[in-house]
Amino acid sequence: MNQEKLSFKFELEKKVPRPAPGGITRGASVKDFPASVGLAGVSMRLEPGGMRELHWHANAAEWGYVITGSMRNTLVHPDGTSYIDNFEPGDVWYFPKGYGHTLQATGSEECHFILIFDNGNFSEDHTFSVTDFIANTPNDIVAQNLGLTLDEVRLLPHSEAYFALGQVPDDSSLIAQARNEPALMTMHRYPFHAQNPRVVPGGGKQRIVSQKEFPISATITGSLLELEPGALREMHWHPNADEWQYYISGQAEMTVFLAEATAVTEEFNSGDVGYVPMGAGHYIKNTGTEVCRILIGFNAGNYESIDLSQWLSSNPQDVLVTNFGVSKELIDKMPKSELFIRAAGRT
Amino acid sequence: MNQEKLSFKFELEKKVPRPAPGGITRGASVKDFPASVGLAGVSMRLEPGGMRELHWHANAAEWGYVITGSMRNTLVHPDGTSYIDNFEPGDVWYFPKGYGHTLQATGSEECHFILIFDNGNFSEDHTFSVTDFIANTPNDIVAQNLGLTLDEVRLLPHSEAYFALGQVPDDSSLIAQARNEPALMTMHRYPFHAQNPRVVPGGGKQRIVSQKEFPISATITGSLLELEPGALREMHWHPNADEWQYYISGQAEMTVFLAEATAVTEEFNSGDVGYVPMGAGHYIKNTGTEVCRILIGFNAGNYESIDLSQWLSSNPQDVLVTNFGVSKELIDKMPKSELFIRAAGRT
Amino acid sequence: MNQEKLSFKFELEKKVPRPAPGGITRGASVKDFPASVGLAGVSMRLEPGGMRELHWHANAAEWGYVITGSMRNTLVHPDGTSYIDNFEPGDVWYFPKGYGHTLQATGSEECHFILIFDNGNFSEDHTFSVTDFIANTPNDIVAQNLGLTLDEVRLLPHSEAYFALGQVPDDSSLIAQARNEPALMTMHRYPFHAQNPRVVPGGGKQRIVSQKEFPISATITGSLLELEPGALREMHWHPNADEWQYYISGQAEMTVFLAEATAVTEEFNSGDVGYVPMGAGHYIKNTGTEVCRILIGFNAGNYESIDLSQWLSSNPQDVLVTNFGVSKELIDKMPKSELFIRAAGRT
Repeated sequence: MNQEKLSFKFELEKKVPRPAPGGITRGASVKDFPASVGLAGVSMRLEPGGMRELHWHANAAEWGYVITGSMRNTLVHPDGTSYIDNFEPGDVWYFPKGYGHTLQATGSEECHFILIFDNGNFSEDHTFSVTDFIANTPNDIVAQNLGLTLDEVRLLPHSEAYFALGQVPDDSSLIAQARNEPALMTMHRYPFHAQNPRVVPGGGKQRIVSQKEFPISATITGSLLELEPGALREMHWHPNADEWQYYISGQAEMTVFLAEATAVTEEFNSGDVGYVPMGAGHYIKNTGTEVCRILIGFNAGNYESIDLSQWLSSNPQDVLVTNFGVSKELIDKMPKSELFIRAAGRT
Repeated sequence: MNQEKLSFKFELEKKVPRPAPGGITRGASVKDFPASVGLAGVSMRLEPGGMRELHWHANAAEWGYVITGSMRNTLVHPDGTSYIDNFEPGDVWYFPKGYGHTLQATGSEECHFILIFDNGNFSEDHTFSVTDFIANTPNDIVAQNLGLTLDEVRLLPHSEAYFALGQVPDDSSLIAQARNEPALMTMHRYPFHAQNPRVVPGGGKQRIVSQKEFPISATITGSLLELEPGALREMHWHPNADEWQYYISGQAEMTVFLAEATAVTEEFNSGDVGYVPMGAGHYIKNTGTEVCRILIGFNAGNYESIDLSQWLSSNPQDVLVTNFGVSKELIDKMPKSELFIRAAGRT
Repeated sequence: MNQEKLSFKFELEKKVPRPAPGGITRGASVKDFPASVGLAGVSMRLEPGGMRELHWHANAAEWGYVITGSMRNTLVHPDGTSYIDNFEPGDVWYFPKGYGHTLQATGSEECHFILIFDNGNFSEDHTFSVTDFIANTPNDIVAQNLGLTLDEVRLLPHSEAYFALGQVPDDSSLIAQARNEPALMTMHRYPFHAQNPRVVPGGGKQRIVSQKEFPISATITGSLLELEPGALREMHWHPNADEWQYYISGQAEMTVFLAEATAVTEEFNSGDVGYVPMGAGHYIKNTGTEVCRILIGFNAGNYESIDLSQWLSSNPQDVLVTNFGVSKELIDKMPKSELFIRAAGRT
């Protein structure tokens, strides 16, 4: 790698968006962001009634998280079943690779959400929209398929719609699928904010949603990390997954350590994306004055992390004395159990 | 991709065959047919007694289907067990990657069969024949291994046999393995034609053999599709697999839709091979005057398909109105449930 | 491939070692040894007290085997558990990809051991040492993380230690982890020499340790093969794995058969490494005057092999007559069951 250009940061919200009636979208695939090999992401904003049309992704599963606003999603499974769910801020969805779906903002304000894909090569080349499919199929086939006349077929869009602005769905549409009982979570919807987080007093919080909590999410694990000012998510690595980060609010510093004396330290602000390759060492420190909130996706269905304090404290004292070439007294000052997050002012 | 050359069709039966005593073979790997990345295939014809010698494939499992004639196969498993089965038209086999096997035509007429491999890079480079193995091993080693003298070793072939023409096996050979009870299917043999197909009256039939029906077939699913004249296997895609097609009889039109306004429409005739990448939209229409029969292999152990009618009919009306920008009345004319196949004269 | 240079042999012990206080190491990744695509290996020697410092491998699991001397290993799992084990000659370990670990020689003599990795691209680029991690992280972060002052942080190594020479651990360290009951094997330690081998009288012995015997070893199977002078591990192939060999003692000849009349015959001596691609035919013959001992790793959790004698003897006689174009009498001289190893003087 060209070390002058080695970077694990992409300023997603500064990208010129793709505009359309009903919304805007900003994406970062490996083409935009070379480090982003195993995961990619999108920040999308839909006006009320704005729809990301019926489409599917040929090479990636989709994991979504609502930041603001509300939304209705529809999904079809290859077994013929179909699903409609409504999402509020903090809710998560997971759509398996290749399953047809649509997203539409409901309510009265813009819906802003983040999409994470388990393939850095996710791109428009591998996204298939229904209008594009129909417009590029001979008219006589479409007519036979849909039971329409050729004149009726000509009323359908002649090119990809991508976004479409419609009426905000009314209640009768939102409850289109009968529900026998209210459910906290459904097959495709997980209310992430309702989860009781792991808390380090004065340091921060972490919520994790893996396949264990959300069974359909076989290939992606999500994390929502909140760090207090000055707090440090300690030095650690993930043995089983790459990490894709979206900084929702606040600011932070991260160093990505790549072995052989190579490390990259960068500052992240609200709207930036960070990336950490599988196995690479890293930490995240809140360098701002407000809580730093980070949405994280891993490309594995289970969560694994090894923290420096956990590792060091699990070794006999003599191993550390030999390894670091320092006194027993210095080793004794090091953590005696896992820290996870260290609050500010603890140096 | 160079769109001028983008093609999902290969005229397999027009290829100059590899001739040999006992049979001929025509193959299409990704070298011959660039679209054919995830699957490859072969059309082979053996005279009575003609044998494709003992061999194994280092990088692919083999799925076979008999069109005409009959055949005996032998197979060895790494656990030391071995199997002999006899095949008639419509029977299917599956041999796991790397397992040693042989094929020999029995009966009194040519045996024509199709082989499908779950690796487009399948090729002669990765096919290992027993005579080639022995001819390229030092004679003293072969002698020690087989318990032969060096003079006897010199009687063995000095180069790859590939095909060998022998006597048609007699009954005593065909029943070489004792069977306690007759079985409709065995570990490696599935009588595909005996399966009760899914039928759309006036439209066509489909048989599917996945790992569910044929447990050893962990990496390949087969389909046998029959379309009546004018019938349409509707617009659909497969979320989990590439598709390899051999047109057994009749003629058809297929469009492969690749997103971003890219689609390729081609005509297929008996003996042609078609290919559809995972996730790409497509349909198949019988454009001829007789039944079109297509043998299909997918590179996954389970069958998944999402049909356009299924997808559209599973969405609330208001979603489709917004997505297509047309009236409710037009949406109401569209299918209300999955079609799968639409018979002719239904536009 | 350039056939003039096609080789499946690397003289590992003749490589100039990487020296350091406490030990030396010689490695062979695919960069050194182009055939070695799916597996790589290292021969390491540690003086008493010599330590390979705390580190992890981002892209490979590690399988180890002690030839001489003794050793203590520590390991941390991402679930927060940690393990300490002691190893003697003939003991094996397995560390999953990305798990932090250290190795240190105990006792009074050099410890010589072999490491096998399930990725030929294993290399120092993907090995992360704790001192390198700390030295390349800003000092203020290290101070906050470890609860040290900046002055104390400056006492830690300023670059990668890699090896460190310390005191030989005393008994109190070696029993740092309480054990309720003595165990023949632990989660990460398998006493390979204690296994009852498969024996061919006059021919040789084989021990196998796969995931079946050693559950944590999900991606690597080990084999310890001993051949008597003149004995032949017969012609065979592995359908499911590449093979990496370290010749511990003795000498041997191996031919690797790659199909299409391509084969490479080479001589191997103590300290050499051999490699066989998945599916490639090969044999190993002891061409020396003492027992040849070979340590073998496969990149799969289960062991599969198909031997020529097993394959031929499982086919009806008429198949072999046709395949080889020889008489029934000659076929009848061939093996009637699996040989596995053929003793000398049996040609």
